[in-house]
Amino acid sequence: MRGEIIVIGNELVTGQVSDLNGCYAARRLTLAGFYVRGITIIGDEASTIESTLRCAIARSDFAIITGGLGSTSDDITTEIIAKTLERPLVQNADILSRLESSLRDRGIAMTPEHQKLALLPQGAEVIDPVHHVCGFFIIHHEKPLFFLPGVPEQMRNMLDSHVIPGLLDKMSHRTYIKERILKVFGLEETKVNQLCQGIGEEQKGVTISFLPRFPETHIIITVRGKEFQQTQDKLRETEEAIRKRLGSYVFGRNGQTLEEVIGHLLRSRRLTLAIAESCTGGLIGHRITDIPGSSDYLDRDVVVYSNRSKEELLKVPKKVLEDYGAVSGECAEWMARNIRISSGADLGLSVTGIAGPTGGTNEKPVGTVFMGMSTSRATVARGFRFQGSRESIKIIASEYALDWVRRYLIDDTLLFSY
Amino acid sequence: MRGEIIVIGNELVTGQVSDLNGCYAARRLTLAGFYVRGITIIGDEASTIESTLRCAIARSDFAIITGGLGSTSDDITTEIIAKTLERPLVQNADILSRLESSLRDRGIAMTPEHQKLALLPQGAEVIDPVHHVCGFFIIHHEKPLFFLPGVPEQMRNMLDSHVIPGLLDKMSHRTYIKERILKVFGLEETKVNQLCQGIGEEQKGVTISFLPRFPETHIIITVRGKEFQQTQDKLRETEEAIRKRLGSYVFGRNGQTLEEVIGHLLRSRRLTLAIAESCTGGLIGHRITDIPGSSDYLDRDVVVYSNRSKEELLKVPKKVLEDYGAVSGECAEWMARNIRISSGADLGLSVTGIAGPTGGTNEKPVGTVFMGMSTSRATVARGFRFQGSRESIKIIASEYALDWVRRYLIDDTLLFSY
Repeated sequence: MRGEIIVIGNELVTGQVSDLNGCYAARRLTLAGFYVRGITIIGDEASTIESTLRCAIARSDFAIITGGLGSTSDDITTEIIAKTLERPLVQNADILSRLESSLRDRGIAMTPEHQKLALLPQGAEVIDPVHHVCGFFIIHHEKPLFFLPGVPEQMRNMLDSHVIPGLLDKMSHRTYIKERILKVFGLEETKVNQLCQGIGEEQKGVTISFLPRFPETHIIITVRGKEFQQTQDKLRETEEAIRKRLGSYVFGRNGQTLEEVIGHLLRSRRLTLAIAESCTGGLIGHRITDIPGSSDYLDRDVVVYSNRSKEELLKVPKKVLEDYGAVSGECAEWMARNIRISSGADLGLSVTGIAGPTGGTNEKPVGTVFMGMSTSRATVARGFRFQGSRESIKIIASEYALDWVRRYLIDDTLLFSY
Repeated sequence: MRGEIIVIGNELVTGQVSDLNGCYAARRLTLAGFYVRGITIIGDEASTIESTLRCAIARSDFAIITGGLGSTSDDITTEIIAKTLERPLVQNADILSRLESSLRDRGIAMTPEHQKLALLPQGAEVIDPVHHVCGFFIIHHEKPLFFLPGVPEQMRNMLDSHVIPGLLDKMSHRTYIKERILKVFGLEETKVNQLCQGIGEEQKGVTISFLPRFPETHIIITVRGKEFQQTQDKLRETEEAIRKRLGSYVFGRNGQTLEEVIGHLLRSRRLTLAIAESCTGGLIGHRITDIPGSSDYLDRDVVVYSNRSKEELLKVPKKVLEDYGAVSGECAEWMARNIRISSGADLGLSVTGIAGPTGGTNEKPVGTVFMGMSTSRATVARGFRFQGSRESIKIIASEYALDWVRRYLIDDTLLFSY
């Protein structure tokens, strides 16, 4: 079945807000096995809404329309639907009584604007009448038309719990679509592409696509098939084939983040971490502490932005700062070792560098970054030269630092061989 | 003039990628004084591209089409345009010779895929022939149709440097559109709305809209007018009227961030800052260090995630931690005072709290956060109870902390009266 999505809102055609609903609905519909013809974004304008709706009914098997269902004067979707479909607006007693009791509870008097919310085109069935702005659907000339509120959270709830299941019921030949995302870091996109060449090519229904998601590359495996088990099997085989080629460059799958993966590894190995960061400015700590329960394995993070703070908090000798500079492998080693020792944590991680746009020299240009890692057995440092804006240097440095921790945790011989 | 935007790409109708070009173009066109009828997002599918293009030509004064101009087999836009407009594809000698020399430089042999890039519909004029994927435009039945590559950076460049100026040339009655964004923090959106009531109402061409941008509210003032100076004046007057009502709740305008505003204030007052953060996990330091040159005023930031680190790095007395807990006004004061004194910075800022989802108690539920600020004259603490996810508690706590610094810097009596 082939459908389309219509998104209504003045703030979208003026570009003040970028639409989130269209992309979300397209994703959910695609994964459920439907084809999406297109997403049309239009303003709250009667003639445009009417002609867009007419076209959709003429060419698609179903349509999902969001936005413009509210109570204010610029919300005209319901009125235009009634006119276009030639169905008079009728008062929905159910919505009206729920509205009355909700307003009573809050001590608010009913206004004509509120009453407007209870008017639906004849034949409309209410979706989720619990909320004040409800959605509804109409089967028009055998085609289901779903009208959903524009507030992303409400729209998503109704789409997932009512629209998709409703459409699946109507599909005679079900197609199973399975998807998996593999997240890769440390390899260029073209290299990832090359390494995966040939995988899935002879398998009908298997698509592999590559998405650069700075600083990571995400591989999306999509499998379409008529049988559930076969689709599932193909997905597993394709994932295995890719993992075999890319090895530990794959750090996670689907929604997993690098910081989440590290959290699992630290927790399962009962290890604690302490960080000393300079040019990343707190970003590494911020990422690690985005994970619930991270206080179990993160002891502390010191952001040593001045030379004085490096000396005072990490006992980096003045001589090291003078001879090698704060941005050096030597300084990174001192930072990693001393944050580990002073905190009593198992693992010490450090980052020091020049995020720019100023502060670079010929010898150490903007993007020069050193990282250190220290355990009770050894302390080592690595140097990098990144490119890009201040923000992107902070991001890629934090990613390399976190990935180094991950690689050490899955294979601690790496600490010495890197 | 009324135009529309068509965005082409399979990855968009499957929802794998969310479109950035449509919103960008809509914004630029709106600010240049054009009306955007809608944004249509479709896949790389011949019949859909053809019918969408036909509709656009019939109903709009101009159209901007992006995507599908590349060299791979799924890029079919150019071919379909030629068919729809009934203009044969002809080889563009200029593009071909540039392509040849660029390939020669890189030692790559010319393939039919490359040659495809030099084929344009008859009558097309090339936009920016320097890039390999070039854009072009066709005046068809007196309506300009612009075809731009889908890569956001290239598309934006061509739009700003060729398309908008080209369209402005064609407009007989120029409309000036001026826009300003005022950023507000610390007031609920409904309250901001209430306080601004009546402003701009009697002014023709002035629109004020409110955009919640968690945790801030942005006020967008748009002024349309036929005369440059008058439009400019109305904008200034409206901004002044709003600022008068909202006072210091307005922290910045247009692209300014809170961390940027604080950076300016610290620099102009020659003050330095040191931070001790717990539940925000490094986010405050990360935000401050996103600003180039922040090493001039940020001395250090310690993320004290364990009680031990609070004692060791900040000398918070064990008795304070035992009697009041790490999440308390007392602890926040100790943290702020001691980070200031130990670092020698002018200002000490601290945050300690429970970001959740676990760790809350009846007395101190998830979202309980204390902040401290310390100068050589005084040390004070404030308590908050935030709601939401772990991520949003981190964000709103960091925003309140930064805003507190801003308010202190613009009026230091606030430190005592807050």
